[in-house]
Amino acid sequence: MAYTKRKPPIGARPGTLAIPADATPPVIATMCYSAEFLDENAEVHSSQIGTLHRSGATSWVDVRGLGDEATLWELANQFNIHPLALEDVVNVPQRPKSELYPDHQFLVIRMMQFDAATHHLDVEQVSLVITEDAVVTFQERLGDILDPVRKRIRDNNTRIRKSGTDYLAYAIIDTIVDGYFPILETLGEELEDLEQEIIDQPSVEHLSEINRVKGTLLQLRRSLWPTRDMLNSIVRDDNPFFTEQAQVYFRDTYDHVYQLVEVLESHREVVSGLMNTYLSVQSNRTNEVMKVLTIMASIFIPLTFIAGVYGMNFEHMPELKHPWAYPTLWGVMSAMGIGLFIYFRRKGWIGNQDRSLSSKRKDAL
Amino acid sequence: MAYTKRKPPIGARPGTLAIPADATPPVIATMCYSAEFLDENAEVHSSQIGTLHRSGATSWVDVRGLGDEATLWELANQFNIHPLALEDVVNVPQRPKSELYPDHQFLVIRMMQFDAATHHLDVEQVSLVITEDAVVTFQERLGDILDPVRKRIRDNNTRIRKSGTDYLAYAIIDTIVDGYFPILETLGEELEDLEQEIIDQPSVEHLSEINRVKGTLLQLRRSLWPTRDMLNSIVRDDNPFFTEQAQVYFRDTYDHVYQLVEVLESHREVVSGLMNTYLSVQSNRTNEVMKVLTIMASIFIPLTFIAGVYGMNFEHMPELKHPWAYPTLWGVMSAMGIGLFIYFRRKGWIGNQDRSLSSKRKDAL
Amino acid sequence: MAYTKRKPPIGARPGTLAIPADATPPVIATMCYSAEFLDENAEVHSSQIGTLHRSGATSWVDVRGLGDEATLWELANQFNIHPLALEDVVNVPQRPKSELYPDHQFLVIRMMQFDAATHHLDVEQVSLVITEDAVVTFQERLGDILDPVRKRIRDNNTRIRKSGTDYLAYAIIDTIVDGYFPILETLGEELEDLEQEIIDQPSVEHLSEINRVKGTLLQLRRSLWPTRDMLNSIVRDDNPFFTEQAQVYFRDTYDHVYQLVEVLESHREVVSGLMNTYLSVQSNRTNEVMKVLTIMASIFIPLTFIAGVYGMNFEHMPELKHPWAYPTLWGVMSAMGIGLFIYFRRKGWIGNQDRSLSSKRKDAL
Amino acid sequence: MAYTKRKPPIGARPGTLAIPADATPPVIATMCYSAEFLDENAEVHSSQIGTLHRSGATSWVDVRGLGDEATLWELANQFNIHPLALEDVVNVPQRPKSELYPDHQFLVIRMMQFDAATHHLDVEQVSLVITEDAVVTFQERLGDILDPVRKRIRDNNTRIRKSGTDYLAYAIIDTIVDGYFPILETLGEELEDLEQEIIDQPSVEHLSEINRVKGTLLQLRRSLWPTRDMLNSIVRDDNPFFTEQAQVYFRDTYDHVYQLVEVLESHREVVSGLMNTYLSVQSNRTNEVMKVLTIMASIFIPLTFIAGVYGMNFEHMPELKHPWAYPTLWGVMSAMGIGLFIYFRRKGWIGNQDRSLSSKRKDAL
Amino acid sequence: MAYTKRKPPIGARPGTLAIPADATPPVIATMCYSAEFLDENAEVHSSQIGTLHRSGATSWVDVRGLGDEATLWELANQFNIHPLALEDVVNVPQRPKSELYPDHQFLVIRMMQFDAATHHLDVEQVSLVITEDAVVTFQERLGDILDPVRKRIRDNNTRIRKSGTDYLAYAIIDTIVDGYFPILETLGEELEDLEQEIIDQPSVEHLSEINRVKGTLLQLRRSLWPTRDMLNSIVRDDNPFFTEQAQVYFRDTYDHVYQLVEVLESHREVVSGLMNTYLSVQSNRTNEVMKVLTIMASIFIPLTFIAGVYGMNFEHMPELKHPWAYPTLWGVMSAMGIGLFIYFRRKGWIGNQDRSLSSKRKDAL
Repeated sequence: MAYTKRKPPIGARPGTLAIPADATPPVIATMCYSAEFLDENAEVHSSQIGTLHRSGATSWVDVRGLGDEATLWELANQFNIHPLALEDVVNVPQRPKSELYPDHQFLVIRMMQFDAATHHLDVEQVSLVITEDAVVTFQERLGDILDPVRKRIRDNNTRIRKSGTDYLAYAIIDTIVDGYFPILETLGEELEDLEQEIIDQPSVEHLSEINRVKGTLLQLRRSLWPTRDMLNSIVRDDNPFFTEQAQVYFRDTYDHVYQLVEVLESHREVVSGLMNTYLSVQSNRTNEVMKVLTIMASIFIPLTFIAGVYGMNFEHMPELKHPWAYPTLWGVMSAMGIGLFIYFRRKGWIGNQDRSLSSKRKDAL
Repeated sequence: MAYTKRKPPIGARPGTLAIPADATPPVIATMCYSAEFLDENAEVHSSQIGTLHRSGATSWVDVRGLGDEATLWELANQFNIHPLALEDVVNVPQRPKSELYPDHQFLVIRMMQFDAATHHLDVEQVSLVITEDAVVTFQERLGDILDPVRKRIRDNNTRIRKSGTDYLAYAIIDTIVDGYFPILETLGEELEDLEQEIIDQPSVEHLSEINRVKGTLLQLRRSLWPTRDMLNSIVRDDNPFFTEQAQVYFRDTYDHVYQLVEVLESHREVVSGLMNTYLSVQSNRTNEVMKVLTIMASIFIPLTFIAGVYGMNFEHMPELKHPWAYPTLWGVMSAMGIGLFIYFRRKGWIGNQDRSLSSKRKDAL
Repeated sequence: MAYTKRKPPIGARPGTLAIPADATPPVIATMCYSAEFLDENAEVHSSQIGTLHRSGATSWVDVRGLGDEATLWELANQFNIHPLALEDVVNVPQRPKSELYPDHQFLVIRMMQFDAATHHLDVEQVSLVITEDAVVTFQERLGDILDPVRKRIRDNNTRIRKSGTDYLAYAIIDTIVDGYFPILETLGEELEDLEQEIIDQPSVEHLSEINRVKGTLLQLRRSLWPTRDMLNSIVRDDNPFFTEQAQVYFRDTYDHVYQLVEVLESHREVVSGLMNTYLSVQSNRTNEVMKVLTIMASIFIPLTFIAGVYGMNFEHMPELKHPWAYPTLWGVMSAMGIGLFIYFRRKGWIGNQDRSLSSKRKDAL
Repeated sequence: MAYTKRKPPIGARPGTLAIPADATPPVIATMCYSAEFLDENAEVHSSQIGTLHRSGATSWVDVRGLGDEATLWELANQFNIHPLALEDVVNVPQRPKSELYPDHQFLVIRMMQFDAATHHLDVEQVSLVITEDAVVTFQERLGDILDPVRKRIRDNNTRIRKSGTDYLAYAIIDTIVDGYFPILETLGEELEDLEQEIIDQPSVEHLSEINRVKGTLLQLRRSLWPTRDMLNSIVRDDNPFFTEQAQVYFRDTYDHVYQLVEVLESHREVVSGLMNTYLSVQSNRTNEVMKVLTIMASIFIPLTFIAGVYGMNFEHMPELKHPWAYPTLWGVMSAMGIGLFIYFRRKGWIGNQDRSLSSKRKDAL
Repeated sequence: MAYTKRKPPIGARPGTLAIPADATPPVIATMCYSAEFLDENAEVHSSQIGTLHRSGATSWVDVRGLGDEATLWELANQFNIHPLALEDVVNVPQRPKSELYPDHQFLVIRMMQFDAATHHLDVEQVSLVITEDAVVTFQERLGDILDPVRKRIRDNNTRIRKSGTDYLAYAIIDTIVDGYFPILETLGEELEDLEQEIIDQPSVEHLSEINRVKGTLLQLRRSLWPTRDMLNSIVRDDNPFFTEQAQVYFRDTYDHVYQLVEVLESHREVVSGLMNTYLSVQSNRTNEVMKVLTIMASIFIPLTFIAGVYGMNFEHMPELKHPWAYPTLWGVMSAMGIGLFIYFRRKGWIGNQDRSLSSKRKDAL
């Protein structure tokens, strides 16, 4: 659940690629483009890549699946990817970060998709290696949210076709960051529903729900804060792989992450308030239950006692003989019952809540 | 509710103006003034604007409604507004910020109006483009709180007529910031009422109220903190569009925002205290209910038992025959009842609360 | 209550003095002194002030009441008080601050007096204008806590008579800061009492008390933290109006404020603990009430059932005829009652608490 | 428990080695290696060490057990270990830190092993003295988690064999840091189990468990935060004993500690949420118990009263004689019982919870 | 209690020594020593001090008791103690701090002793005036924890005898800081006991205990944090009265204070957890009580009703005449009772807790 599992064994020598047995075998797609042309390959072998790039053009090498060590090393050789960077590609999850290596810029970010039905947050590390003329992306699995980027590349007149690798990297990262918005929105709606449900009818399963949402938010937080730091360093620092123009665009993405963090933190406040709401509603309901019990018991226990008294078998109980005794007693008992009823009503324990609500509504008119 | 909705779709190319279908069509008003003259137009077409400005004068171009892309681009061309700034004008909400562009200073702020009856917080982004001789303001809708500024411009002898665009920008922002004070005051009063109501009679709907106020405060917070940063950067940084004299005035506005933030934070403390109060009052009431039940049950259950005993049908129950048995038993039962009553009174469960209060009052005299 | 009310209307032009209708008309007292002489005037007109100062001497012009705009402007002209400073004098409350103007140093501080009986915290802004040879103080109302300063001035051999305006300002501010100590002490004692009362007998009114004290502490906090910043800037920064010698004295005052802040923060911790104490005590009492009910009901309900059984009117109930049946049943019922009593005692629900206490005391010996 | 016990007595002169009576006598193992050879000794006497090192090679002197002062001083002389460093070796626990001495770098770190069965966290201080050609490690006891490092040294072609003391120090520290991962993972699983158990059936012993886990996390925190600072200073600062290449590796370890801290903090959030869950579940159960009581009492107490009425012995009770009175009364009583039953069902107190769940499941389909 | 009482009256002129009437009259002891000799005087008059110092030696003038103004001024003259420093000596408590005066370094620290039996924390300010050749310590009362320092001075071959005033100051401060360890340890043990007691049997007096410990920790905190700052400034800043060698020793003391702060903060976390534990345990117990009540009432109230039915006096109740009716009814009632008993057992309200525990223990095997 916490997306912190895959690690080489304790004390493993650095440089070890911890490829798990069930990792997806890599599928490599390439897009080589300039303003004039686009050359797209849906699936190529790692050995072909060197031949696919045209000089002066921008290449996007998109590797989905990390299940084959040989392929990864071949790509590393092709693009001069530093062994430590390659390790970070494989030994997921790394925290989102930006690192400058001699031959390339290395970015790590997390792509998230949320399935509202199963409440499953699908997290995938995307690593970007940005060189002069190519962006190599490594994804853990097939299936991503980057189709809008591909579509913009296929379109002839887009800015992306006229720009270099830095803009391509921006487009990819911006799209991934945009993918967080619907997740936070869905969670926000869930929280609103949860609050309403808890106020209507709190049950133990809501506690699990609260804890689940809390966990999801914590996970988002652990992605968003370092993403924000990463983007901040891209925007601020001089960097041979990013033009100033691209930095302006990254600043925009930074602004989005800033906004996401704000929404996230406000969701977290709501979650912590929900637990209080739960306790309050619960305590309210207990109070209601107690009132019913107290009213019933307080009215009927004394009456039962009186009935018990005249059920006693003493020989000398003059009341028992009197012809009006029985109806009189009924009168006394009714009076007691009604008296207690009025007393509790005055205390606001009976019917009061609705009354106070309706009187309020009158005030509001 | 959370004012975070309008966004271009995921992966949309930057520069896209996400104008929603229901956006208000823009209405443009202009005021061109110097110390000597004032030329005011309540509604002009975007193409006319170039002709309305007199050199040496200060112009305020007030655009209310963002529903027409053509108009916005025309204005952008007229005033050399940077495309990224124009995007921020349209893709609301942006967080309050101050950005310097080559030809103008760009400010974003949020104008708020609170309807105490419906508890609705109306939030609107106001974007200011400040050039040498003009301030262009973009509002999302018709209707604002800037009439006092217009009035001061219409008045001949005000400082605003004698000053430039920086002072005009200050007047607009100061007025918008001043608009937060009554909102926080209203919320403060609501909180006081809420506390009193909760102490008098806590009900589940108060929980929703608390959460609502909490949400409103959170939203104000998300506006005020960045507004404070924005003003701080205006006051501190050198800037070609702001004179030192204007900075002194902005410092005053900064002071107001500082004060607002303080009041806001103290409101937030009160809100978080309210939930505790709710729980405490509720627990108090449950305790009261329990006491009533316990007293009634503890007094009458034993008595009922005794009555039950003498209702038994054993043949050999000598007490039953004794002529004084019945009145004696009444005596015993009364003694028991009164004894328990005194016991509970001593424990402070009956009538004690008022007594303790009144004894306190005596101490106070 | 929150001392944040008086403000010019929204969008008012800066420089407006928002003098409320009920403001106290100003009473001006002056003390002009050097080591050799003292010239004191209990009440002078603002127009006379120019004539009262002797060159080489130090003057204290003490303005109590801000209810007359003409007087204030006259004083401003006399001492070259900057219009923005004058505004801050009138538009109370400003947060405590220190601002340097060309002709004077401007300080704002809050003077507080606490009425323990009514729990009213009287807050008043004192503004100091410090020039080369005069200190002008503006107070909102008559009545202050500065008499010890006046007394020291009247005394011939005090350091204050031999020092300049910076030392006079120090003496005034130090006296005002000293005035916070008894307030915090009183609040500390109130908190101790409150805790004891809550442990003895928690009631809903304690919640209001807790919230009241919390509010008072919040208000003190909002005064003390900026006062600390103000003093820090006086101690650290070079300043034409403060000698190094005076700065040493201000450092002492800074230390006092630091100590006040510490006490304040610890009071705040106590307050937040009180709510927990309240809830715990309340839950304890509910538990006690429940135990009594449970013991009474658990003992007598089964007994009542048994009595009920033998009150049934079946014809064939052989027990009823047996001569020893009735006493035997008494025996059985007594055994049951005593058995349950012992059971509850063993569980620690009866009398146990005192026992555990007394056994503890034995351990302590 | 809190691992803060061993200290020289109050006021002891510095330089005192506080060796406790039960300290393990030291066992010294050495590994002297270069790329070409490896010379390993499982147990040597401290006096032999000088003869075991070959020039140009790297030596690891591993001291397990601190129970003999003479041995420690002999080692200190051999490697020019500063007396204050030696003190820190012995007077455990020191907080993890990195200190530069004239002849060596001194590192302190904590090695942890967690026994999930007994919930015992075994903490041991490991001190590293790093010189030009040797690393001396001091452990408190026999038994460690450094076997992977030894294995890598024994292996001919590993990077460790080709590198110097800085890489050896890195390998040791990285292995110790890696040892924290399974501990946090185990604690994470414990927390998940605990949450499930509390939701199923909260009992007082869970409170002790929560407090125990909290204590363990606190202890980990007190180790991890300073470890992070230590690694940060190694990565950032110039240092004669660490090459730039080694610093890159230490940066990797720093990343691991960063990740550990993140997991730790999220565990801490979970723990603090657990207490709330406990309270909520408990309050839920109390509510359930109350409902059962209230339903039973509310239905049967009035019925008992009615039965009591017709058990009275008045002579004039005409109902008693009517032949249909008894079955009629049964009808009335059944109607009352069923009515109340339906009433409580409508209120959602009977069977409602399951119904609401099943209706939810239908919605989900 | 809060150790914040003694202050000159509001507005008192600075330089006033606020010596309270009950202050201990000063007792002055001196130790003058070098590596070669030691000259110790248990009680000297302040006028004699000038004659007791030998040039080239180090003197410790230990003043216990501040009850005589003349003596203090005489000492001040003797050692050129600055009047403001002397004030801080007398007007206790000052916060721990380090101040450099022209002729001496001035340190303030708090010496604490904790009486575990009475839970009394004895706090005493110790002020140190450090000159070239003498350390003057001022204590509030007789009785301290500095005997180990005196012993080390009396011992011929200790480092203290060979070092100067800075080392003496270090020895005094280190000893005072060491005195905090047992206090925190005692408090830690108290907290563990308290937790166990609360889990076993929570009572209202535990709330007072929790608050008491919390207060003590707060007081320690207010001493330790500034002590840490003080030592940090000694370690970092250049200072004519401290050699670099001594600074190394002070760094060690700084480390101790750092460790104390850590333990303190973890104690504070434990305390805040205790309140939650209290509430949870209390709520648990209430739940237990409720279960007993509910079981008893739910079983016997319906049975009593049935018995009541057959106690009615209707003439036409055919069941009453049937010879097997009575035993049949017993059967029915037993079945009902046993049925409800089994129902509650299944719900886990009877005996379940122990069962779940024992089943757990089986799992653990």
